Amino acid sequence: MPPTLDDIREAAMRIKSHAHRTPVLTSESLNRQVGTRVFLKCENFQKVGAFKFRGASNAVFALTAREADRGVATHSSGNHAQALALAARLRGVPAYIVMPDNAPKVKKEAVAGYGGQITFCEPTLEARESTLAKVVERTGATVIHPYNNERVIAGQGTAALELLEDVPELDVVIAPVGGGGLLSGTAIAAAETKKGMRIIGAEPEMADDAFRSLNTGEIVPSVNPRTIADGLLTSLGTLTFPILRERVEQIVTVSEKGIIESMKFIWERVKIVIEPSSAVAVAVLWERRIDLSNLKVGIILSGGNVDLAKLPWQS
Amino acid sequence: MPPTLDDIREAAMRIKSHAHRTPVLTSESLNRQVGTRVFLKCENFQKVGAFKFRGASNAVFALTAREADRGVATHSSGNHAQALALAARLRGVPAYIVMPDNAPKVKKEAVAGYGGQITFCEPTLEARESTLAKVVERTGATVIHPYNNERVIAGQGTAALELLEDVPELDVVIAPVGGGGLLSGTAIAAAETKKGMRIIGAEPEMADDAFRSLNTGEIVPSVNPRTIADGLLTSLGTLTFPILRERVEQIVTVSEKGIIESMKFIWERVKIVIEPSSAVAVAVLWERRIDLSNLKVGIILSGGNVDLAKLPWQS
Repeated sequence: MPPTLDDIREAAMRIKSHAHRTPVLTSESLNRQVGTRVFLKCENFQKVGAFKFRGASNAVFALTAREADRGVATHSSGNHAQALALAARLRGVPAYIVMPDNAPKVKKEAVAGYGGQITFCEPTLEARESTLAKVVERTGATVIHPYNNERVIAGQGTAALELLEDVPELDVVIAPVGGGGLLSGTAIAAAETKKGMRIIGAEPEMADDAFRSLNTGEIVPSVNPRTIADGLLTSLGTLTFPILRERVEQIVTVSEKGIIESMKFIWERVKIVIEPSSAVAVAVLWERRIDLSNLKVGIILSGGNVDLAKLPWQS
Repeated sequence: MPPTLDDIREAAMRIKSHAHRTPVLTSESLNRQVGTRVFLKCENFQKVGAFKFRGASNAVFALTAREADRGVATHSSGNHAQALALAARLRGVPAYIVMPDNAPKVKKEAVAGYGGQITFCEPTLEARESTLAKVVERTGATVIHPYNNERVIAGQGTAALELLEDVPELDVVIAPVGGGGLLSGTAIAAAETKKGMRIIGAEPEMADDAFRSLNTGEIVPSVNPRTIADGLLTSLGTLTFPILRERVEQIVTVSEKGIIESMKFIWERVKIVIEPSSAVAVAVLWERRIDLSNLKVGIILSGGNVDLAKLPWQS
């Protein structure tokens, strides 16, 4: 069952004392550049530097005491792993994280830094899933999927809920789409809060599986995606796909060039650090792929976790 | 005559509708890292990306209509030039900016983009001053010095005024010091608003003329400074020096390594873009040069104008 607006409101209450209420920033130079009025919901300022903490903490704090005691588990090398580890630590329960042994050192250290208990495995999907199954068998932990999970989706929807509380006059909301957790939660929150709200997904051309899935009417897996937006490599899930199909007006794809230019512009002019996946949503306006001129456009900036040693405009 | 708290309050009223009231950010990871509670006054979010807009706009809007009509002038290739150009444009009067002909293209374009009328000259102090004198003779414009000017100092003080309104319980305020305009305004605003407030200047070891000036009791010129904090290369002025001498507890110098590490940490963990001169103030805590543990420390982040193509941790 897909989450409802009430589930998202409940999630907002549940995570209130754990997650940051992130600010909404505006920029005159951005507005001028793209010809519309933009409201940036800054999940780059969220704990662990990404919206993922909302879903993870909602899932962790929604567990019964008995479930929670046995811990939570996932396989991930990205922001979800860090978010789950931190949420579990805040609840005082273990988080078991399965990671490929070739994951970057900085990501291993980040998960360990939040108290996650890491089990390494071969860098294949089979190895990750079988290793996770073994961990669960041993510990009895609850698996928290990064996006194909009702409570995770409800948690991610709290960002849009806050955005609409702060800027109720919005016409459009744009969020990036990878597995679809953020976009699903955003779509439910925005569509149910305000009738006629337009909800648009933003996706790299080089990883356009959600675009193709919505066009063909069935989940098209992401095959060999090659985009710098490394948070958007995954395919839609069985839970997120029908939500997007019902509520999202369209998925707009953007070029790698547009992602990089948007990202650089936001750093230079808005003075905030955003990751390429965040810039994908900005690039919809930057490349003027659809006409959103003179509207009030909310953008969910997914996060700000980047490797400062190699930036995409320096090649 | 040095400006008073009333002058700063008047400046705040004068620039209210032109300058941004910038946010004060906090970061648990920064607090943990430096062992104290830090409040970041984000002038990187100010117009033109730096606190300089406060002083420039106060100076421009304080002119009589008659004075303003003849325009304003300065020699600068940095943030002050952009700030003055924008302030003049907002008042609808000309800004004459004298720049060395070898100034970076991006700076020329920025000043021109804000409507500044540029006169180029040889890259020597004599040429800059004689060219400025000619421009003033021709136009009758009012020269607005970047820091040795009462109204500029009063304008810069409005940042600390706002900071103390938002966080009245502060124990210490730290601001970087170059020519001393920001630190002078900060010192007057903070010391007069709250008795016993500690005011500390932050300066690169590699450009420690303010440190030496306060220690010797006379203005020591900055000779061949070599720091990445390119906003802090100038010497103190005849107006700023006595203000600092009277009100600043001490100037703390920091290493280039500390500046770079602090800057990178702020980008990575606080997710905001700050320039090296801002990081100089953070580095006072980062390097623990003096004991400020368990206090409430306000830091004026001077700005966020950096060249994203070459970052100091990539060498």
